[in-house]
Amino acid sequence: MTTAASGLSEDDFAKDNYGETLFPRKIESALVHLRDIGEQHVNSSVKVRAWIQNARVQGKKMAFVELREEGSWSIQGLVIAGSEVSRQMVKWVGSLKPESFVSVEGTIKRPIEPVKNCRVANYELHPTKVFCEAPAPETLSLTLASANKAVTQVDEEDTVVDGVESLNVSGSAVPGASLSTHMNNPVMRKRAPVSQAISDVRMTIRKIFTEYLDARGFNLFEPPCLIGAASEGGSEVFKLPYFGKEAYLAQSAQFYKQMEIAGGRKKVYSVGPTFRAENSNTRRHMTEFFVMDLETEIEDHYHEVMYLLEDLLLHIFRQLEVRCKDQIELVRSVYPSPPFLLPKVGEEVRISFADGQKLLREEGPEEFRNVRADEDMSTPQEKALGAIIREKYKTDFYIIDKFPESARPFYAMLDPENPAVTNAFDFFMRGQEILSGGQRIHLPGVLESRIRAKDIDPESPGIKEYLDIFRSAGVPPHGGGGIGLDRVVAWYLALPTVHLASYYPRTPKRLLP
Amino acid sequence: MTTAASGLSEDDFAKDNYGETLFPRKIESALVHLRDIGEQHVNSSVKVRAWIQNARVQGKKMAFVELREEGSWSIQGLVIAGSEVSRQMVKWVGSLKPESFVSVEGTIKRPIEPVKNCRVANYELHPTKVFCEAPAPETLSLTLASANKAVTQVDEEDTVVDGVESLNVSGSAVPGASLSTHMNNPVMRKRAPVSQAISDVRMTIRKIFTEYLDARGFNLFEPPCLIGAASEGGSEVFKLPYFGKEAYLAQSAQFYKQMEIAGGRKKVYSVGPTFRAENSNTRRHMTEFFVMDLETEIEDHYHEVMYLLEDLLLHIFRQLEVRCKDQIELVRSVYPSPPFLLPKVGEEVRISFADGQKLLREEGPEEFRNVRADEDMSTPQEKALGAIIREKYKTDFYIIDKFPESARPFYAMLDPENPAVTNAFDFFMRGQEILSGGQRIHLPGVLESRIRAKDIDPESPGIKEYLDIFRSAGVPPHGGGGIGLDRVVAWYLALPTVHLASYYPRTPKRLLP
Repeated sequence: MTTAASGLSEDDFAKDNYGETLFPRKIESALVHLRDIGEQHVNSSVKVRAWIQNARVQGKKMAFVELREEGSWSIQGLVIAGSEVSRQMVKWVGSLKPESFVSVEGTIKRPIEPVKNCRVANYELHPTKVFCEAPAPETLSLTLASANKAVTQVDEEDTVVDGVESLNVSGSAVPGASLSTHMNNPVMRKRAPVSQAISDVRMTIRKIFTEYLDARGFNLFEPPCLIGAASEGGSEVFKLPYFGKEAYLAQSAQFYKQMEIAGGRKKVYSVGPTFRAENSNTRRHMTEFFVMDLETEIEDHYHEVMYLLEDLLLHIFRQLEVRCKDQIELVRSVYPSPPFLLPKVGEEVRISFADGQKLLREEGPEEFRNVRADEDMSTPQEKALGAIIREKYKTDFYIIDKFPESARPFYAMLDPENPAVTNAFDFFMRGQEILSGGQRIHLPGVLESRIRAKDIDPESPGIKEYLDIFRSAGVPPHGGGGIGLDRVVAWYLALPTVHLASYYPRTPKRLLP
Repeated sequence: MTTAASGLSEDDFAKDNYGETLFPRKIESALVHLRDIGEQHVNSSVKVRAWIQNARVQGKKMAFVELREEGSWSIQGLVIAGSEVSRQMVKWVGSLKPESFVSVEGTIKRPIEPVKNCRVANYELHPTKVFCEAPAPETLSLTLASANKAVTQVDEEDTVVDGVESLNVSGSAVPGASLSTHMNNPVMRKRAPVSQAISDVRMTIRKIFTEYLDARGFNLFEPPCLIGAASEGGSEVFKLPYFGKEAYLAQSAQFYKQMEIAGGRKKVYSVGPTFRAENSNTRRHMTEFFVMDLETEIEDHYHEVMYLLEDLLLHIFRQLEVRCKDQIELVRSVYPSPPFLLPKVGEEVRISFADGQKLLREEGPEEFRNVRADEDMSTPQEKALGAIIREKYKTDFYIIDKFPESARPFYAMLDPENPAVTNAFDFFMRGQEILSGGQRIHLPGVLESRIRAKDIDPESPGIKEYLDIFRSAGVPPHGGGGIGLDRVVAWYLALPTVHLASYYPRTPKRLLP
């Protein structure tokens, strides 16, 4: 199934050793991954499958190729005409387009001096067979070098500038590209080592979250996306026709994680998409976003839940520094940021909402001199408070506890000692909220009176079914929280927008790819 | 915050030791889980938090309570009037409604003879404090005993019979309930040990799937639910208004897992919901269902993927027998089924589609005497073939390979040696398909000609973006498969309907709870 390569002629003694092929040509040598190449391979023949990162001829007898396998792992190849390699083959390899996929057989050699441009610096490959399994186009819409630079137009959808920007080059010869261009070229966007590093960090966070809870007896469960009633307000919910009725897309797993507790599962968690039909075109919003949710029975006090969530997040951050050290460094080389400050053990910062507002009044900017304990915090207030706390306590991670009653939904348990506030908290990273949680009301009578106090009809769709959970059998005291995965990734790495933290970001203006 | 219990009077010396309470009353003894109770606890005071499974007075000086904690773990409690327990307290405990949630302090004792009705048979609890943290209603809509029986009306939505059926009692004193009743009473449905056992099996399958792939260097990723174009046919896709445009709910992760391979992630997997707007009210269909998806580069031959998937599923089944032994037994006690037969190592069954049709012709029922190798198999044919294979090869798990071209979508790679068939396979459990997979076309030219051959416009929405993946850079040969999690659970346990395998099943007629 090998098709003729251009310039290939009958009198080419190496004609079976290169060319384009639909089905992989058999190569006898064993496959090695670039990250594993070592002294044991020197002067041995190996098989490598990789992308052409660069290829050029150097005279008629030699071609240079840079081969990239995964992430930023690359190796230099020298194709030298001789007894196995013909001049036609040299010319053909040197003309391969960047981002073509090839399988190569060759010998590992020590270079005269360490290779500068490749991550495998102490070895090079001398190919004897090169098969192109998938050629790249003549011109790439986004080069790897540009894809691996910081995005230049973050607020993409408001000022759509497609194409590579040649003006903003951040002191380097390679131009950056707008967020639109990155998103419109998903294949090249994803091949950039910086994208893969962000993906690794994200998936490592998910993995640590799961490991931590599995080790503590939590049960994974699956809340539905399609629901029959919009229990958390109708305006920001996606609605769709559903066999003559209407369905909605879930805005949170709240109802369902409480159902699991009511159903006797004791401690539960879920990780999945939730949806919000909010026409917000900001760096903090997406219409489909990922939440890591948990809910657990409370034995004596809701701070059991708060401390569990705090310990969980601190564990994630500390593990991340170890498990994703390389990836974090790589991201910082593209998106420079100050290190994410963690509190020392025993010096975790948990302040009440009232004390937070007091800090803002006393130490915040002029405009916040009159903030009150019984009104909710705005995003600018939160950021100002984050700056004060970083300065004062040297941490980018902290808890605000005891939110006022008016700032929380009907299901928040009121503080028995001060019903003006709730047993509910938010967690912050770099002055931005990443978790909302607290104790929920578990008795139907109390819940119904809170629903009425918030001017909601207890018989309305969604609310009635919610109340029925607690009416149908005795439900133990419980609480939990939901962690915004996209935001944790973005704020930990100090990315310029949450969209860069997502695999396929969805915004009011973007549904593709 | 303790409220007065009925019958409580001022002269009750034990009045602080029982009653209803909104916030948990402090109990000094350490919490124990019923599954952990052992000799070390005898004659010690412990704390237990559990549901009342049953309570009754036995004369004026004693009450029996059965306390259930998680799954089927229960213990017998004897509340005996004496120096710590008053007669009023005995009466109050004996009147607690089943499925109320209580915290109890008491002493662990050895019973005179093993307790018959409780899983903790060798110990009993003598409570000295009983606080009801959440009372159950006077009457339960579905009792635990009924919830723990087999459903009696599986095809629920066509013949909705709500309420407990008193006629169909399967030889026992406790009546069964219809699937509708189970689904309409989610809290009690979930409390039934059989439901929790099914959930455990499901989550263990997910966990083993993840462990297996993590150990082999696969990267988890997240395909979106909201998409901008319906690439896999328009009729069975959910459509919704999206900020002046239209959005669709993803019918599969196919497009996105191939995008990840194109994006250089080498080996990827995802676990998540997908959606199909099919008005099928059967025991095999849901509108929202969970798929465990994977995709990987192919080195030499697509059977690399097929064998990986086979090994993965065999690993899941073998591990399940070990990790979920108790749960599988419990489910079988409610839904009797023959054991799930696995092939011996080295005797795995992989037959070609053509040979499968031949088996049906030669050994199947009369009506399949004329089936042909170039036409797709129907569900009855698949079941008949499953029966033949079970009889002949003693396995409930097998592979049908090399599906005819006409039975596969445009992206299936044709067999280079026989383009009438594809490099694509299905996996079966008990004669029912649970996995579809194979090699995908990775070259844009080949793909475009296959799209045209299937009479699809290569420029149509969704298709164009799909083609662009392969046009934008060289994509390595790759393949994968999608495993229907709901079906794997249901068919492994031989449940009467896939709806029982799901946390919150969605059908054309059910969106609640």
